[in-house]
Amino acid sequence: MKLSHVSTPAALIDIPRMQHNIERMQAQINALGVSFRPHVKTAKSTDVTRAQIQAGARGITVSTLKEAEQFFAAGVTDIIYAVGMVPAKLSQALTLLQKGCALKLLTDSVQSAQAIQTFGQQHGVTLNVLIEIDTDDHRSGIKPESTQLLEVAQALSQPGSRIAGVLTHAGSSYDANTPAALVAMAEQERAGCVRAAERLRDAGYSCQIVSVGSTPTALSAVQLEGVTEVRAGVYVFFDLVMHNVGVCDTSEIALSVLTTVMGHQLEKGWAIIDAGWMAMSRDRGTQKQSQDFGYGLVCDIDGTPIPGYIVSGANQEHGIISCTSGVDENIVNRFPIGTQLRILPNHACATGAQFPEYQAIEADGTVRTWSRFYGW
Amino acid sequence: MKLSHVSTPAALIDIPRMQHNIERMQAQINALGVSFRPHVKTAKSTDVTRAQIQAGARGITVSTLKEAEQFFAAGVTDIIYAVGMVPAKLSQALTLLQKGCALKLLTDSVQSAQAIQTFGQQHGVTLNVLIEIDTDDHRSGIKPESTQLLEVAQALSQPGSRIAGVLTHAGSSYDANTPAALVAMAEQERAGCVRAAERLRDAGYSCQIVSVGSTPTALSAVQLEGVTEVRAGVYVFFDLVMHNVGVCDTSEIALSVLTTVMGHQLEKGWAIIDAGWMAMSRDRGTQKQSQDFGYGLVCDIDGTPIPGYIVSGANQEHGIISCTSGVDENIVNRFPIGTQLRILPNHACATGAQFPEYQAIEADGTVRTWSRFYGW
Repeated sequence: MKLSHVSTPAALIDIPRMQHNIERMQAQINALGVSFRPHVKTAKSTDVTRAQIQAGARGITVSTLKEAEQFFAAGVTDIIYAVGMVPAKLSQALTLLQKGCALKLLTDSVQSAQAIQTFGQQHGVTLNVLIEIDTDDHRSGIKPESTQLLEVAQALSQPGSRIAGVLTHAGSSYDANTPAALVAMAEQERAGCVRAAERLRDAGYSCQIVSVGSTPTALSAVQLEGVTEVRAGVYVFFDLVMHNVGVCDTSEIALSVLTTVMGHQLEKGWAIIDAGWMAMSRDRGTQKQSQDFGYGLVCDIDGTPIPGYIVSGANQEHGIISCTSGVDENIVNRFPIGTQLRILPNHACATGAQFPEYQAIEADGTVRTWSRFYGW
Repeated sequence: MKLSHVSTPAALIDIPRMQHNIERMQAQINALGVSFRPHVKTAKSTDVTRAQIQAGARGITVSTLKEAEQFFAAGVTDIIYAVGMVPAKLSQALTLLQKGCALKLLTDSVQSAQAIQTFGQQHGVTLNVLIEIDTDDHRSGIKPESTQLLEVAQALSQPGSRIAGVLTHAGSSYDANTPAALVAMAEQERAGCVRAAERLRDAGYSCQIVSVGSTPTALSAVQLEGVTEVRAGVYVFFDLVMHNVGVCDTSEIALSVLTTVMGHQLEKGWAIIDAGWMAMSRDRGTQKQSQDFGYGLVCDIDGTPIPGYIVSGANQEHGIISCTSGVDENIVNRFPIGTQLRILPNHACATGAQFPEYQAIEADGTVRTWSRFYGW
């Protein structure tokens, strides 16, 4: 199939760009001397993850147990479920363990740790649990110097569970936009997580895995002493938020939405397209950044950006393209009805999630359908 | 199944509330003496649409041809595809027509009208086409007084197509928040659409359908002289945006997300839940309104709002609950790990779209799964 025959809106993956991104990240982490464990929540596609593993990834990170189930069914066994464990989901995790999945869970409280340990003991299994460390104040986790760290370790060191290691995610790296700030955040993430591991070992606990990562810090880290593995997700596609953070160029963004022009409002300088927020998602991640791309950056059918043209508004199935520098009086001739365009998204994880499948484009223009799943 | 056994996050439909909303809208439109044609893009569920038709709806409105296909397969034949027709989608529409679907298309330009007419002529069918009227400057359509209106009518009045009527959607009613402004917007929507119909008839064209609507204007209209039908979608569930517009109470919001507390950040007064933006969607529709609910309003398991508590932040699978009036030092005891909560969404169309299915709750607490589809 050729691109001109693809029904719009469609989620396009530029395979050469994706492959470049995978190799770039793997080379960076190889050079730092640690393992790389991709976060597969971005694409939720076995086709994408296969390419990551072929490039050298060791194990995967998931954000839902459904992802764990889907990727385990596809042959991946080493899986970290990197969201705090809710007691009610332990039965679902147990089923995976009993099938042979090397699933590792996450906790950041004594109460949750005890629930995991008790459940493991009751079911005659040993659950491997990572302790979540908070290195940047942005979400969950225990501070490296907190007394709670050792309390959780103690709770996990009973029959039914064991400490698999420590894990942190410096999500606030998304708010940085200079190389110096990113390097500093990567070091803060590393130092905090390694410090927590040291405290556990000093107290007599084992701490095999020391897992850090986010796309910006993974690409900015200068040294990772004491770390065993890095995680990152959105790098596989990149997006406009990552462009504004400063870790990719628009020519590296591998996910776009193929759309068709359906009409115009001449006096306003608008072209109306069939990619609204249902296709782009409601993510406005660039709104608070240095460059606001609205709902996405307009590119021609080959993926080359058309400077100054963004999706400035979106309803459910309507997107509005306009020029950031003022009313384009030539909009009807510039983008005639039926014109196919590609839109680069603010946030690849959110945009990809709107689509039941991807249309993946080879270097020679061949388009093949790649599966994607969703839900919990 | 009971609610306490539902895996989280889940999209809950409160059936009594939904039924109340359906009956309220149908009674309002009945009293105005016109037909009601629900927009099924909100729920994308045959279970929901069945209830709308049983209450008296005549035909449906869709935002994608996939919706048309799904609902036609479920037995609905009278369908308006209320998004401007793209030439490349005409084959898909033709297939539906040939199966017996009374599908009506939409155009707002001579170029698109000619493409539809030519296609119809080439395939030996007569395509029924509505002309989209712009009554509030918010998106697509032709101004009622524009010369373009008669040019489009002329283009459609050739073998291969016919004018089915005129259609408008006053989407800018979402920006209003007083009864007076809503009544005025409803009258503006009505008057503009009826004026376009009169101009067509005065020029000798037939104009059977005069279709208006949005949830706020449908509920605010005082008289609809000259109108034949009203369309509305989100009213079936309502949401926090509609609450801020002033057309529903929070106790009428029928869609919520069931979530579980997974942890806390005590010093920040945060409870962390397993409904992040993947569950709530990235829609921040209340951000610019009088009351900003973050990513949603927190309710107890029975759906009663807990005043002052909102989802103030969201990552992919993490939501952050906090109190709008300051740090709640009692957050750990107020929402212990494992607590189930319901979150009312900003925008029901966007939140529903994140889920593969609904969990619909009867008045007696019984939960049954209702199907939902997505994609294009």
